[in-house]
Parts: sequence; C-alpha cells; structure tokens
Amino acid sequence: MMIVPVILSGGSGTRLWPLSTPHRPKQFLPLTTNRTMFAETLARVADRDRFAAPVVVCGESHLAHVSADLALLGISDATVIVEPAARNTSPAIALAAFAVAQGACLLVMPSDHAITRPDAFLAAVATAYKPVMAGYLGTFGIAPASPETGYGYIAAGAPLGEGSVRAVHRFVEKPVREAAQEMLAQGGHYWNAGIFLMRADSYLNALKIHAPQIENACRNAMQAATTAADALYPDVTTFAACPSDSIDYAVMEKAEDVIVVPVDPGWSDVGSWAALHAIADKDEAGNVVRGNVTLIDCRNCFVRNETGEMLSLLGLSDMAIITAEAGKVILPLARTHEVKRFAS
Amino acid sequence: MMIVPVILSGGSGTRLWPLSTPHRPKQFLPLTTNRTMFAETLARVADRDRFAAPVVVCGESHLAHVSADLALLGISDATVIVEPAARNTSPAIALAAFAVAQGACLLVMPSDHAITRPDAFLAAVATAYKPVMAGYLGTFGIAPASPETGYGYIAAGAPLGEGSVRAVHRFVEKPVREAAQEMLAQGGHYWNAGIFLMRADSYLNALKIHAPQIENACRNAMQAATTAADALYPDVTTFAACPSDSIDYAVMEKAEDVIVVPVDPGWSDVGSWAALHAIADKDEAGNVVRGNVTLIDCRNCFVRNETGEMLSLLGLSDMAIITAEAGKVILPLARTHEVKRFAS
Repeated sequence: MMIVPVILSGGSGTRLWPLSTPHRPKQFLPLTTNRTMFAETLARVADRDRFAAPVVVCGESHLAHVSADLALLGISDATVIVEPAARNTSPAIALAAFAVAQGACLLVMPSDHAITRPDAFLAAVATAYKPVMAGYLGTFGIAPASPETGYGYIAAGAPLGEGSVRAVHRFVEKPVREAAQEMLAQGGHYWNAGIFLMRADSYLNALKIHAPQIENACRNAMQAATTAADALYPDVTTFAACPSDSIDYAVMEKAEDVIVVPVDPGWSDVGSWAALHAIADKDEAGNVVRGNVTLIDCRNCFVRNETGEMLSLLGLSDMAIITAEAGKVILPLARTHEVKRFAS
Repeated sequence: MMIVPVILSGGSGTRLWPLSTPHRPKQFLPLTTNRTMFAETLARVADRDRFAAPVVVCGESHLAHVSADLALLGISDATVIVEPAARNTSPAIALAAFAVAQGACLLVMPSDHAITRPDAFLAAVATAYKPVMAGYLGTFGIAPASPETGYGYIAAGAPLGEGSVRAVHRFVEKPVREAAQEMLAQGGHYWNAGIFLMRADSYLNALKIHAPQIENACRNAMQAATTAADALYPDVTTFAACPSDSIDYAVMEKAEDVIVVPVDPGWSDVGSWAALHAIADKDEAGNVVRGNVTLIDCRNCFVRNETGEMLSLLGLSDMAIITAEAGKVILPLARTHEVKRFAS
C-alpha cells in the first residue's frame, strides 16, 4: 500500500484564543507536544514505506508556518497548494485530488486534531485500504466517549467483507443532546472525525455527480495553476467562483459506496482549552502547566503562560488561565468554549 | 483645641503583594482612592483650625514618597523625621514627642489604615482631648464587626467623666478565635487600631518609667540630630542602640491613666486584598475592578490590573486577581492573606 497524505490546513478558529489567532491558527501552535499540531500530523504519516510525499492545502498567509514545519521534519518533496480563498473542505480536497495521479489513494486529514494512539489510527487506515482501492469512499468512525453535540455522527450499516469495515447507513449532523445520548445508547454510531481515505478518481467522480460546479471550478483552477519554487497556486479568479461546501454535505451524505472503519485512536479535535487539558499530561494534582508558573494548592487547572513573567496561583480548582500576546484570560475550565466571546 | 498629627510611616508589609513592595509599601499605594493611603491620612487631619503642621516619621528609602504626597497636599511646614533604623512604634513616637513642645497634644496615626467616616473619627478625637490634656494617654477602640484574630483588643473599664470616655481595663493580645468570639458576645471589647491621643510629655514620662532605655536613646538621638532642607535626621549610632518595641507593649499595657474612646469610624487596616474589597466601591455584581479589564459573568471579585494590557475574565466568583510589576497573582478572595507566600 502506498498512500498520499492530504493535509488540510485551512482552519482559522478562535476556540483556543488568546493563543490561536488569524495569523497563527490552532494547527500552527505547539499544543500537545513541543511541535505544532500541523507538524504532528505530518509526522504521523511520515513513514515512506507506507506513505508518499504529502500534499498540503493551506492559505497564503500560513505558507511560512507550513514551510517551517516541512523543513523541521526534513520533508523537501511535499506538494503545497495555496488556496486562493477559503471555500471549505470539498474544494480544498478537490485541488489536491487534481494534483495527483488519478489512481492514487488519498488520506485526507485535518491538521489540527490530536491522535494519541497513532498505531490504532494507522491500523484502521490499513483496514480501509482494500475497499477504498476497489472504489469505496472511506470514512473513520471514532468510538464516542460521550454524547457530544459538537460533532457530526456516522451511523454504521451492514458489515462489508472481512474485518471491521461497515457500510455507512447515514450521516447525522451535529445532534441535540437527547439525540446524541440515544445514539450512544443504541451503539453503532461514531463521531465523524473528518478523516477520509479514497482514491482521487473516486472522489472527483462523486464530486462531478453531486457537486458539479465545485468539480468544474477546481479542475479549471488547477489547469490554470501557476507554480513557484515553494508552492502551487491555483487560478484565483476561477477558484473564487467555486461554491463553498464541506465534503460531508457536498459528497459524503449523498454518495453511494461510502464505508466506515470504527476506530479508537485517542482522537481529539482539541476544540477548547478543556479538551486540551483532558488529553494533556498532568501533574499529580491534575494540573496542566506550561510557562513560568508557581502553583500552591491548585488542582485540575490548565495554565499556559506565554509571557515569560512569573504567574503565581494559589487555591484554584478547575480553572483555565492562558496568557499570550493577543490576550490574557481567566475562566472556569467548564466554560473555555466561551473564550471566543473575547476574540474579536 | 490644637493637635499635632504624628504620622507613622514605617511599615513595609507584604500583605498586599504584588502591589506593595519594600520600595513602595502599602501606605504609598493608592488603594481606596486615587491618592495614597499616606496622603489620605494627611488629608484627614489637614484642617488647620484644629490641627497643627504634621510630624511624619519615616524611613530614608521612603522620603521621596513622603515629599511627593506633602507637595501634592500643599503642606510645606511638616516636620519629617527620618528613622535611622526600624525600631517599631514606641521609639518612632518618642522621636516625634521630642520634636515638639512638651505640652503639645499628639494624634498618633498609622499611615496605612482606611477610615471611611472621618467625621466620626474626628468627633472621637475631640471627645478624648479634654482628659488627654489633663494627662491621660488616649486610645481609640474600634467597635468590632467580627471576631478578628489579627488585631489586639482593648477591654474597656468604668466610664470616666461625661461622654463615652472609659478607663482601660486591660489590653488583650491577638486572641484565638474562641476568645475573640467571647469578647464580642460579652461586649465592651474593642479593636486596638493603633491610634493614640496624648500629650508629648505624658508619653515621654510614661516611657521613662516603663521603658527608660527607649526614652534615653531617643532623647540622645534627637539631641544629636542633624537637620537638612527636607528632614530631621536623629543620630544614627544612638538610635541604633535603642530597643525595638511597640507602644502597646512598651507603654500602654503597663501605664496607669489610659483611657479608651469607643468609635466606629469605618476603620480598616486594609490588611489583605479581601479587606480592601470589603471597603471599596463595587459594581452591581460586587466586583471591585481597576485597570484594563473585561468581565463577563463575574461576581464578588477583586481585580487590579496594573499592566495596561487587557485582562479578560469570565464566570469567576469570589476571586482576587492582581497584576503588577512585582508579580501576577490569582487566588480566592478568602485566601488573600496568603499572598505573602509568594513575596520573597
């Protein structure tokens, strides 16, 4: 098996404000390790016995971050595609699919998710490989740990051939709490992690059927693309006319022949400081601390001090404290999803 | 009545760290208003119909702060005595007593206490004036609001003449909780605020009886004092040999003829950030906020941000957050007396 990693780096969220900013979104922050999430994503698929040179799709303003991480990992043969505009995942993946051999198998990954058990992840990819090469569009279903309402779900259908591969019964949009709880109780429902395995031609054929305007705009943008030393630049005018849509809406929810491989790879989208606290290494009192910090009698806190100046904490529980150039915020860990109220 | 204010400015506490530091102790911070506690103390006794030019006793390293506040208030005739060394209150007051006419009536005040009802305070001073001019040593007993264990108490004895003046039955050192509760239940016990009204000669006579070494050292230090444009400098060598003791231990607990005037002047020694929160103006949610701060859903918090950079707070209750050049601290309001654990 030889797979082409396609790493999507279009995100620009405010969920990890004040550390994440438009200039340096989440994927270019060192969150779970001393390397950025983007570098960790590259490293996860760096084994050249199984993976070809990666394709990266990013915005122009983040090119310097991409180049720095590629250099850090010693990757000199990546294909970097500069999105002329943000048009969501479906067009971004189409640009990548037009840049490779049409029979190539693509592993499409967001660049800002954490995976703590890469072996389980790679085993699931290997499981999906055979049906995907036979033409199926492959998704990965994360065993749900809780009735999250912030993720889409995949309802698995009948088993398909040997192993854990199953047909997809249907995609479920972000549910309300009760529906999420029911799916967990029922079983056979998985979080949609936005990771896909599919042949380039399988995807583009499905796109041509279900979202022909996207397929056409991306085809034309890539045909008129210019190349520079560092990256591939799809035609701006053509791509600007492309509809914006996610791969889930544009293709997956409509296509036949979609499979799901259930997996529990220790996945997190690190969608809040609390989510990062949950997966990070903790001290014996449950604190996650980074930077110049003195703690007395603190437990279950997330502290990230980027200022260099000492921060003194006493008697705090279940708090998040983040100081960075863009801002300094203090709030309960249970409310870290609200930091975006300050990011404007 | 003409009274000489004697303002003691020897404190160098760490209880309001990180704002208070050895270079700028509590009395030289603007805490309850935009003026320093020292300036507020001067202003409280600035009515020249009732008060003479003040005598200030301070350390040499704080002379610049003293001069600045005197200039701010337009006081050009103060006597500033520079303590050659810290020897507690009894010698400091003796230096002042030797600097004035021996029949003068001294109102001795710490410079780092808050009084929110100055009229009540001045009325109590007026009440004490007559017995003090007759030779009594006057103390002021603060109506206790709670069984504090951080203050000494004064047990009042029999009424003395007309008005609220009472003899002092005894001084009680900082009590344990149960003893404090019993004193509150019993009544007739008051917090010792460290404020005194007495004739200079009454104090020095009592000092000569109960602490002759202090009286002698201070007399000699003042006889050999040198004067400069800005201040009076008692002789260093002589004063260095003076024992260190508080006026309470050295004189008040031993002297006869001590009276107490009960008063409720809205007094606070501002001994912690929580104490400052208690007496400060609050927003409708009970927050006391100073500096560049954005609050969402916060209540009963004390926030003082001296950095100039925005601080963003969400969902906090009963917390104290102080940022200053010397440090940045976050802790529950109920534990602010522990900030000294960080000040080293």
